[in-house]
Amino acid sequence: MIRFAITFVLAAAIPLGDAVAADAPQQAAATEFRIHPIGHIKKANDRMLIVLDKKYQDGLLGLEQWSHVQVIWWFDKNDTPQQRSILQVHPRGNPQNPLTGVFACRAPVRPNLIGLSLCKVLAVNDNVVEVETIDAFEGTPVLDLKPFAPGQDLASGVKVPKWAGPK
Amino acid sequence: MIRFAITFVLAAAIPLGDAVAADAPQQAAATEFRIHPIGHIKKANDRMLIVLDKKYQDGLLGLEQWSHVQVIWWFDKNDTPQQRSILQVHPRGNPQNPLTGVFACRAPVRPNLIGLSLCKVLAVNDNVVEVETIDAFEGTPVLDLKPFAPGQDLASGVKVPKWAGPK
Repeated sequence: MIRFAITFVLAAAIPLGDAVAADAPQQAAATEFRIHPIGHIKKANDRMLIVLDKKYQDGLLGLEQWSHVQVIWWFDKNDTPQQRSILQVHPRGNPQNPLTGVFACRAPVRPNLIGLSLCKVLAVNDNVVEVETIDAFEGTPVLDLKPFAPGQDLASGVKVPKWAGPK
Repeated sequence: MIRFAITFVLAAAIPLGDAVAADAPQQAAATEFRIHPIGHIKKANDRMLIVLDKKYQDGLLGLEQWSHVQVIWWFDKNDTPQQRSILQVHPRGNPQNPLTGVFACRAPVRPNLIGLSLCKVLAVNDNVVEVETIDAFEGTPVLDLKPFAPGQDLASGVKVPKWAGPK
């Protein structure tokens, strides 16, 4: 079973060595976790599919009863040390938008290249979830799916910066 | 710079060896990504804080202009191969709830132990974000922050399974 080869790695065990160890907090907290794609985005004939690896298919049981799913994925095209070191951007690539922290916008560059998309579920068949649309490229690795639960995912009284508001 | 020691690892380079290689898709897709905490949850005197490592502080610029933030974190207490192999649960630990895939509920066990919490932002000071509340334990590693943007994060016409609905 491949899953039993998955571990999380303490600083002392990371082959990257001193650089990571020197950066570790005082407590013995993990400084690195390992994640594995559970599947990939597939776009075919205007259909948008989340195709899970067959071994994860059982995890979809009941998803068809939810209207929306939050798809957590990996900006794999930006997975370079340089792009993971960027902390501020002009949002939407527009230099007229104010310089903004990557944790204060949805930039596709950030230390951990996690993407999050709320999608309407159209169908669930075997290991495939069809969604209405998703703003991730063909082939994008998918990390997790979470159903949209109004009790925890709905915000009220939302406020956004001027640059992110209606035009 | 520690960031330059961060890489993503192709199957051929993973010391776990044959098990991972055999599991790799036909294309040369990455089978593993490495993520690093950007900070941790701190709960003190009834205040709930997201304390970022100082080196990530610049990423918070402008977050105070948003009312809500989506906090992406790691279920570090469940990071065992056994818990990462669980694909179906009775939600909320209630055996009367139907057996459900982990991708169809918010179970704290799942192949990638990613947690997602929508939080109201109370204040942003230096490397610390104070939120109204968060359903993660003290010390929980935080992976990413994304502001809640109504245009992409608001769902309408939401449907949920009976077990997840109002009592």
